[in-house]
Amino acid sequence: MIDRSDALALDAADPLARWRDEFVIPDPDLIYLDGNSLGRTPKRTVEALHRVIDEWSGDLITSWWEHDWLHLALTVGDELAPLLGAGPGEVAVHESTTVGIFQQVNVALDLVPGRRVIAIDDADFPTDRYAVEGIARLRGGEIRHGLDDLAGVDVVLRSLVDYRTAEVADLVGETARASDAGATTVWDLSHAAGVLELNLPDAGVELAVGCTYKFLNGGPGAPAFVYVSRSIQHEVTQPIWGWFAQSDQFAMERPFDPRSGIGRMLNGTPPVLGLTAAREGIRVTVEAGITAVAAKARLITGFCIDLADEFGLATDTPRDPARRGGHVAVRHPDARHLHEALVDHNVVVDYRDPDVLRFGLSPLTTSFADVFDAMSALARLVDRA
Amino acid sequence: MIDRSDALALDAADPLARWRDEFVIPDPDLIYLDGNSLGRTPKRTVEALHRVIDEWSGDLITSWWEHDWLHLALTVGDELAPLLGAGPGEVAVHESTTVGIFQQVNVALDLVPGRRVIAIDDADFPTDRYAVEGIARLRGGEIRHGLDDLAGVDVVLRSLVDYRTAEVADLVGETARASDAGATTVWDLSHAAGVLELNLPDAGVELAVGCTYKFLNGGPGAPAFVYVSRSIQHEVTQPIWGWFAQSDQFAMERPFDPRSGIGRMLNGTPPVLGLTAAREGIRVTVEAGITAVAAKARLITGFCIDLADEFGLATDTPRDPARRGGHVAVRHPDARHLHEALVDHNVVVDYRDPDVLRFGLSPLTTSFADVFDAMSALARLVDRA
Repeated sequence: MIDRSDALALDAADPLARWRDEFVIPDPDLIYLDGNSLGRTPKRTVEALHRVIDEWSGDLITSWWEHDWLHLALTVGDELAPLLGAGPGEVAVHESTTVGIFQQVNVALDLVPGRRVIAIDDADFPTDRYAVEGIARLRGGEIRHGLDDLAGVDVVLRSLVDYRTAEVADLVGETARASDAGATTVWDLSHAAGVLELNLPDAGVELAVGCTYKFLNGGPGAPAFVYVSRSIQHEVTQPIWGWFAQSDQFAMERPFDPRSGIGRMLNGTPPVLGLTAAREGIRVTVEAGITAVAAKARLITGFCIDLADEFGLATDTPRDPARRGGHVAVRHPDARHLHEALVDHNVVVDYRDPDVLRFGLSPLTTSFADVFDAMSALARLVDRA
Repeated sequence: MIDRSDALALDAADPLARWRDEFVIPDPDLIYLDGNSLGRTPKRTVEALHRVIDEWSGDLITSWWEHDWLHLALTVGDELAPLLGAGPGEVAVHESTTVGIFQQVNVALDLVPGRRVIAIDDADFPTDRYAVEGIARLRGGEIRHGLDDLAGVDVVLRSLVDYRTAEVADLVGETARASDAGATTVWDLSHAAGVLELNLPDAGVELAVGCTYKFLNGGPGAPAFVYVSRSIQHEVTQPIWGWFAQSDQFAMERPFDPRSGIGRMLNGTPPVLGLTAAREGIRVTVEAGITAVAAKARLITGFCIDLADEFGLATDTPRDPARRGGHVAVRHPDARHLHEALVDHNVVVDYRDPDVLRFGLSPLTTSFADVFDAMSALARLVDRA
């Protein structure tokens, strides 16, 4: 029997517990388990946004140089890079995740002349599937549904962490399997970044994309990141050409001549407010240490699965800690109503049509007691139903 | 002889003078004439950003519904629409201007099967030229340099206001001329929005794009707007497909089925912080009244040109008030050094390689005295040089 004192003991032993104080938490009684959809607000983000508003109003146009807004998309990328095991000059942060996916799949197609077949799993996240459909229409490409047989496939787009079950794909093995079939994989790390310890170069990953508003706590609609391995940057052509990718940006009379590094992935003027918030969210995770964050993610999702078992709740989140991300999926035919009923108990989780409740256990802001209380509330509701 | 009392008299008679108080102006002695690159900070924007940070930290994921973030890209578009003479459901605000250009040129190409020839002026703004180059490469299109002969052209991309001279193209006549040649024009309104009174539907414009961080005071790297005439929305296919364009966004198992209106132009999760700032900037201009704003733009740019004449400074900004935007271009071989020397006189203007000083006269924040003082300082520097 797990009881609440077990949760409190785990919290007492949690080396990351103090990081919760780094976040703005107006209602300490709210159990918020949806940081996998929108992470909480770091206190330093509030300060940074105040500072950037002062820069804008006070220093105006000169802020692009004085406060280095001009390079912000790459500076923030460099700060995020260690979370991916990447080096400086391999990551840029800008635009939406959908635009990033669009860029990266086109980059992958253009790596080899004549490429046109893109494979994606029908169960992958909608925006990934839509982006691929749109690219196939635009370029006269072909979509292969499913990833079991990669013969004849040129590009694979896939999420590392399944947005429903939290199952983690085999990054090394699957990158190699695609490569052996002659395909380049674009990894969508949206549900992985900031909760898994990654080493993209060691895994042989050449292209990746992800969002910063989930476990990275970057703010609502925060800009996405794109990763391009240094080893292929010289041969990369992305499709959306704009002045922030130009090698000598303010020499305005020349044809497009892309910058030599990751800067060629940029498009237009970067979103300074959004980037400022994303930067602080990223910094919190970098400072807390991704090794510790990932360790807590494994522990707290395991605790959640143990509680599901004890309360007789069904979950298809993997039991192998190495095979799951930062959330736990509970399946129940009444999931929609349970989601609403939990709100009345001051518990916010995520609901995905038709029968999934996602418990997002953001390691820096979620306590084991939160998990115990939320799962207990759900168990009582299910018994009552 | 124009003297400073003339400027003060014009300020006293300026019906928009009080709007300067709506902006954060930490250094009242700074003469900021670069609002055409980055507009000043409305006070209400600071308040709105504080509010949206509270929404994020307090209401977290539910803010997407409770504070209607879910529709923010279209709500802000609807608020901007009157500045373009457009109606509700014809404008969306999202992503960067470069992404908007990329979308719109692709939309124009796809309006008619087989389209592939895009015309652009070699003197147009760099990001427009780069975007077109990238699209031609991506799709196997052809670029026609120059707009004099439109025979065989499918799509024209052009700025309404020249970013150097401020010359305004003939919106009605040039849209019709392209149309007569079988081409669709995508108008880039970046230097026009918020300073010219526009009526895109009456002008027969079907597609436009523009930025909100210049005369609309939307903040650094603020999201762009895209306009699609209601009359063609049903036949529009844009290239970057994402979940915010999906007709039933949270029914996640279906193929892409775009929304019926302007919503199909959306891509990924919208940038809530940037949109919040853009919204307040747009609202300031809407409330001040675009008719009054445009009238002041004509008057204050005329005053600046008169001063240039009096001081013997060369300008190629049109003398016909109906043919110019909200800035005045002064040409001088020493422009680069004059730009720096003006900073020492607390005057910020914009420099464009090799010989252009742009005096951006943002109507809501620029006084006639500012213009007199800045042009006088320039005249003294030139005499001394």
